[in-house]
Amino acid sequence: MSEDLTALVTGLAKRAKEASRVLAVASTERKNAVLRRAAKALRGEPGDRVLEANAKDLGAAQEMGLSKAMLDRLKLDRKRLDAVADGVDQVASLPDPVGSVVEERVLANGLRIGKMRAPLGLIGIIYESRPNVTADAASLCLKSGNAVLLRGGKEAFHSNSAIAEIFERALREEGLPAEAVTLLPTTDRQATLVMISLDGIVDMVIPRGGEGLIRFVAEHARVPVIQHYKGVCHVFVDRSADPEMALRIALNAKVQRPGVCNAMETLLVDEHIAPTFLPKVGAAMKAEGVEIRADERAAEILGEVKRATPEDWDTEYLDLILNVAVVDGIDGALAHVAQHGSNHTEAIVTQDGANADRWMREVDASLVLVNASTRFNDGFALGLGAEIGISTTKLHAYGPMGLAELCTLKWVGQGEGQVRQ
Amino acid sequence: MSEDLTALVTGLAKRAKEASRVLAVASTERKNAVLRRAAKALRGEPGDRVLEANAKDLGAAQEMGLSKAMLDRLKLDRKRLDAVADGVDQVASLPDPVGSVVEERVLANGLRIGKMRAPLGLIGIIYESRPNVTADAASLCLKSGNAVLLRGGKEAFHSNSAIAEIFERALREEGLPAEAVTLLPTTDRQATLVMISLDGIVDMVIPRGGEGLIRFVAEHARVPVIQHYKGVCHVFVDRSADPEMALRIALNAKVQRPGVCNAMETLLVDEHIAPTFLPKVGAAMKAEGVEIRADERAAEILGEVKRATPEDWDTEYLDLILNVAVVDGIDGALAHVAQHGSNHTEAIVTQDGANADRWMREVDASLVLVNASTRFNDGFALGLGAEIGISTTKLHAYGPMGLAELCTLKWVGQGEGQVRQ
Repeated sequence: MSEDLTALVTGLAKRAKEASRVLAVASTERKNAVLRRAAKALRGEPGDRVLEANAKDLGAAQEMGLSKAMLDRLKLDRKRLDAVADGVDQVASLPDPVGSVVEERVLANGLRIGKMRAPLGLIGIIYESRPNVTADAASLCLKSGNAVLLRGGKEAFHSNSAIAEIFERALREEGLPAEAVTLLPTTDRQATLVMISLDGIVDMVIPRGGEGLIRFVAEHARVPVIQHYKGVCHVFVDRSADPEMALRIALNAKVQRPGVCNAMETLLVDEHIAPTFLPKVGAAMKAEGVEIRADERAAEILGEVKRATPEDWDTEYLDLILNVAVVDGIDGALAHVAQHGSNHTEAIVTQDGANADRWMREVDASLVLVNASTRFNDGFALGLGAEIGISTTKLHAYGPMGLAELCTLKWVGQGEGQVRQ
Repeated sequence: MSEDLTALVTGLAKRAKEASRVLAVASTERKNAVLRRAAKALRGEPGDRVLEANAKDLGAAQEMGLSKAMLDRLKLDRKRLDAVADGVDQVASLPDPVGSVVEERVLANGLRIGKMRAPLGLIGIIYESRPNVTADAASLCLKSGNAVLLRGGKEAFHSNSAIAEIFERALREEGLPAEAVTLLPTTDRQATLVMISLDGIVDMVIPRGGEGLIRFVAEHARVPVIQHYKGVCHVFVDRSADPEMALRIALNAKVQRPGVCNAMETLLVDEHIAPTFLPKVGAAMKAEGVEIRADERAAEILGEVKRATPEDWDTEYLDLILNVAVVDGIDGALAHVAQHGSNHTEAIVTQDGANADRWMREVDASLVLVNASTRFNDGFALGLGAEIGISTTKLHAYGPMGLAELCTLKWVGQGEGQVRQ
């Protein structure tokens, strides 16, 4: 049984890898045609079949007693599916990264060198309940000339299969191998283990989901993993900050969309500005329904307020809860972030150029901001057009990953007969 | 015993990681001062102690019956050590990658974003007999703001210790933590296993040496590994090639320095040009003492010649031996390279722009060349100033790795109070 599973997953991965070689040299026009066909199908009758499959998944999920939040993540309706189709069309309209040359220059010997973007090959995506990831991942991988091996969540299996089928048909109709989008026909954990062991076949794995899933993949993988861990993001209000700007940024970072990874979890305030700033931010947060958990010094200023436990400083609430601490200037803030940050997004509010510079240089995070909300850390907001996730891995890609980050950069050189002296 | 070893290696790695945080924010001037001190010491009395230690290593190696080639790789003399010192000085004179910002632009909302080079943290280098790697790796890692954990070869242990000591002292004398250059005090394989398991402490491991070492590290590592596998490099002579240019490039690629990874192992010739080109290249190679191993079609043209075995096409000879095959045009050449290439360096000689373009786009190698010798694939020849190796890994870095490739790119953004709408 387990041997059968190993053979099954390995066989599917090998065929997907073969397909990746065809995708790697497919023209932009053909790749875009696949995406436009898939988008059209999602909006039409094949999309109806996706909704039927989704209804089946939802029914089973309700019987299994999944939480309301889980059911909402799983649910597709015509409006949501049309939005998924729009996303696929948007990827079609983005520039093709493959073949673009960067850092071009001419060496003293006349050799013209540069780095050309080329697909990675076969990308594995391991995800949980949201079926739209199937379409997002497929379109980003295809556009960047890669094949994709998908392992979706058990509860979304029928939805994912119906969406994957739409991409397979679109590939076939454009004369490309359907195996370039391969959904594993099983959600068995053993199948995942096989998939992440296929060194030399799977070129990169991106786990998308909760911390447990990501740690499981990172611990067992024999192929490179790009991790997208939780975001415990901070805003530090420096003593030189414009208090109104600091208030605006802190509120936006916490309440504009609290359930996402780039929302703020902890507000750090310089001890010099804390006595005047904290009461204002405390009142404003309260008015927005935010629960504050303060350290000793912040609590002294804020008065009646909950105290933060040691665990709170490392917690991604994804909710209207905010830790607040008073720190000894920028050194205190840097030390706090180094200890509790998650390499995701860290912002300073300051009018002091030297402190802004120190913050940018010394904070180790995928996006380090000066005078702007942490909410800007996503591929759309940073102008990538689309993203497959936000990497908190420092190798290969750090931060939002778009089409360019699904490629490698190979060196290319054009000469007129140059030889080495 | 094994538990002691685990505790020892883990403790050293943790202290080196702590040191990396200091190095990450050290000024360019201070890092350069460390390197200049180390170079000066290598040229002076501490260098003499390196030579004494090396004599001890050489004596033991001779008793152990190491090959002449191995002994030569291990051997240091005053001239070689001065060259090592020159290399360290050269790294000091290269621009500091840390803090440089690339791809800067201003978004529609006024947010100025870019990507800033930042150190990776703690880099592990696992290498074999050549003690100069200790100085090369230490200087490149320090200059790029990283700490380095070194595991050298058993036979070079005393030499490596003496060189590492020079860097430790130079760090201390400049007020930086000596632990930023840490040589493991044991060459036990178990220590290597511990080192490559330290996820979250060691940020990247680069194994330098034979294929066996690299495979061992890749198979057992729990931290990211940048592989530098063998080079089975090809030159393809297209039907449109200038025969004189093709001959010049083929000779340079094979004989200028046959013992290195970017030397050519296999010459592919288009069937249309083979009858006129092969006799010329055969005679020229023979005059240089090169042994030819031909496929059937090449043998028909070349006459009296050894036949290549199936294994030969995948062999890195590092010697004056050359495989020769006749192929069905560029499609045949691309298929041969896809099957037998090692993602290292692949060159085409052609006057046909369309074939040049196909070659660059379709060949999957760290450097793809048109009308130039494969020998150009190294960091010095490509203008990086220095290199820590040539990556055949597609993630993070593909090709020669210099100071920039020892860094990550974190996003930085500077605003005037921007919040997300």
